[in-house]
Amino acid sequence: MTVANHFELLAQDGQARTGRLTTPHGVVRTPAFMPVGTAGAMKGMHWREARDAGAEIVLGNTYHLMLRPGAERIAALGGLQTFTGWNGPMLTDSGGFQVMSLSELRKVTENAVTFRSHIDGMKVELSPERSIEVQRLLGSDIAMQMDECVRLPAERGDIERAMRLSLRWGERSKRAFETAPDGAMLFGIVQGGDIPALRHASACGLIEIGFHGYAIGGLAVGEPQAVMLSMIEETAPVLPADRPRYLMGVGTPEDMLEAVARGIDMFDCVMPTRNGRHGMAFTRFGQINLRNARHVDDPRPLDEEAAWPSTSGISRAYLHHLVRSGETLGAMLLSEINVAYYQELMRGIREAIAHGSFADFRERTLAGWAQGDIAPR
Amino acid sequence: MTVANHFELLAQDGQARTGRLTTPHGVVRTPAFMPVGTAGAMKGMHWREARDAGAEIVLGNTYHLMLRPGAERIAALGGLQTFTGWNGPMLTDSGGFQVMSLSELRKVTENAVTFRSHIDGMKVELSPERSIEVQRLLGSDIAMQMDECVRLPAERGDIERAMRLSLRWGERSKRAFETAPDGAMLFGIVQGGDIPALRHASACGLIEIGFHGYAIGGLAVGEPQAVMLSMIEETAPVLPADRPRYLMGVGTPEDMLEAVARGIDMFDCVMPTRNGRHGMAFTRFGQINLRNARHVDDPRPLDEEAAWPSTSGISRAYLHHLVRSGETLGAMLLSEINVAYYQELMRGIREAIAHGSFADFRERTLAGWAQGDIAPR
Repeated sequence: MTVANHFELLAQDGQARTGRLTTPHGVVRTPAFMPVGTAGAMKGMHWREARDAGAEIVLGNTYHLMLRPGAERIAALGGLQTFTGWNGPMLTDSGGFQVMSLSELRKVTENAVTFRSHIDGMKVELSPERSIEVQRLLGSDIAMQMDECVRLPAERGDIERAMRLSLRWGERSKRAFETAPDGAMLFGIVQGGDIPALRHASACGLIEIGFHGYAIGGLAVGEPQAVMLSMIEETAPVLPADRPRYLMGVGTPEDMLEAVARGIDMFDCVMPTRNGRHGMAFTRFGQINLRNARHVDDPRPLDEEAAWPSTSGISRAYLHHLVRSGETLGAMLLSEINVAYYQELMRGIREAIAHGSFADFRERTLAGWAQGDIAPR
Repeated sequence: MTVANHFELLAQDGQARTGRLTTPHGVVRTPAFMPVGTAGAMKGMHWREARDAGAEIVLGNTYHLMLRPGAERIAALGGLQTFTGWNGPMLTDSGGFQVMSLSELRKVTENAVTFRSHIDGMKVELSPERSIEVQRLLGSDIAMQMDECVRLPAERGDIERAMRLSLRWGERSKRAFETAPDGAMLFGIVQGGDIPALRHASACGLIEIGFHGYAIGGLAVGEPQAVMLSMIEETAPVLPADRPRYLMGVGTPEDMLEAVARGIDMFDCVMPTRNGRHGMAFTRFGQINLRNARHVDDPRPLDEEAAWPSTSGISRAYLHHLVRSGETLGAMLLSEINVAYYQELMRGIREAIAHGSFADFRERTLAGWAQGDIAPR
């Protein structure tokens, strides 16, 4: 059966691509960065701020939402977009990754993973079919197949076993998704750790099953950046050019820039909000630690040229004060500033690809980060 | 010497008054509620949200700001309005109240209070002159005299001693304020605990000194509401009708409504943000605890008729979920909702007074709170 295609590739520049992904809740321009709204909320940010910053799609975590407030409850309340008030495109993960990282007493069988909720200790079973059911109840625009993700470094045997299981779960996920309404999408997930042959086998297996889009999973789990980029280089060319490609859980601005250069279209990461909570700002001068005493008397904004109000209208001295004083507003402003920078970076990338100047954009951007922060005053 | 008057009384309805207070950073309509931006930040709220909600003036805490980041530093950075980006009218307290409540090893003498900073244990001296100097460095639009506030219940002897000391400090504060630029204001503070004769003596002493406005201090410090209202009734009629009257640290919506009925023009309180952080919402149905299970499946907003976007566009179920999950966004939304409700209440009060319908407004508002929340669904 042919799988409908909602992705339109608009331009390609080297391996870098820009396109449009049409979801039931709106159009997403790619490359796209998805801020993470874990349990139905971004940490320290209003949804309207993410939208104002330029985010066109966000991510919700199935694991958190199924445990609290519950998928059936969210469905009764009109779905995740209505429930949260985000009212735009949403991708949900399968829940599998967080079962592995957050829950206790988990047990993986061919059929499902069983675990105890980290909230109330209740025993829960998550199968590929239930994961899809939950994601359908949430009403996500893009659902992810359930997979098993192995932390690196790992033995080849473990990596291969998890990859094969993920393929079988991908097939079951697809079958469970068959009754989903038109327009909703399901992405398969390439596994295979740091072993090219296994990545190839995974990608080919998924393509045979057929998905609306393809994710690369199991990266940014402890391996060096070079390994991650090399795995993208092994995988992306195998994936169908007319389908969106999503690199899960990545990453730093540099990770994303390099991944785009290797043909990736979508990203998600908690880094802009998490690092913001720890006093760090992402800027075109690289990452800046606002806790540093060099900012204490500095009346200048983080970046004189930035268009985002919270970046342009607020002094380094004030951000330093808020971070040092442990004021929530410091975390709020830096989360917003960081999400805005991530979106600004995506906008720059998309424009550069459209104009055929991505190589130049990449070089200038990397040079800016390498040069570091402006001189203290 | 005559003290310039920047207050214009526009209408009176019973004892309730509405007017305009012109500060160097803009006009404030009274009755006015001032959200509290303790250490240069409101807890969990952006300044722009306070402005959008209708706040025309906010309060900064001298004690916090003088200890961190320091008054001289804020002055060098352009003053508190520029530093924080609030850029509107600001009132600062004298620091005295928080020295009493937050610092250790404090010692009050005729000349000054000496204490150890709760941040780094450093020994600091705060005299009436230094308090005014700090408030001038912060660049506040309205400075407060330094006073000594006694927690109730207390002995008459202690209350009187503190009241007399506060009068002498008021005189010294005024002298220290003489070089302040035109337009900046200094308010005296009526003390005298719960003893009418001492309140009278304090008010008369202050009027003799002469201030731009008069505050009633030493209330909302543990006494029943009836005592607070009775002290306002004893004090307000003694104060000059053409000067603004500020009830410090008050309070609940009902406290404020009743205080307005007794001639008060200005309020400040941490309650909207603090209670917001604890899952409580102020509404025209009274205070609502969002942690309560009755909201878990309720798709309705807190108040169907509220104009504020965060009140009208967000379900009780979502707020309940955020509060139960400990998501920062819950505290952020409820703080915003509460400050917006406080401002909405002030707006209603001002309009009612202007139209001579305050008694009716007061009755309807009290009836709404008494009736309580809408029936659960």
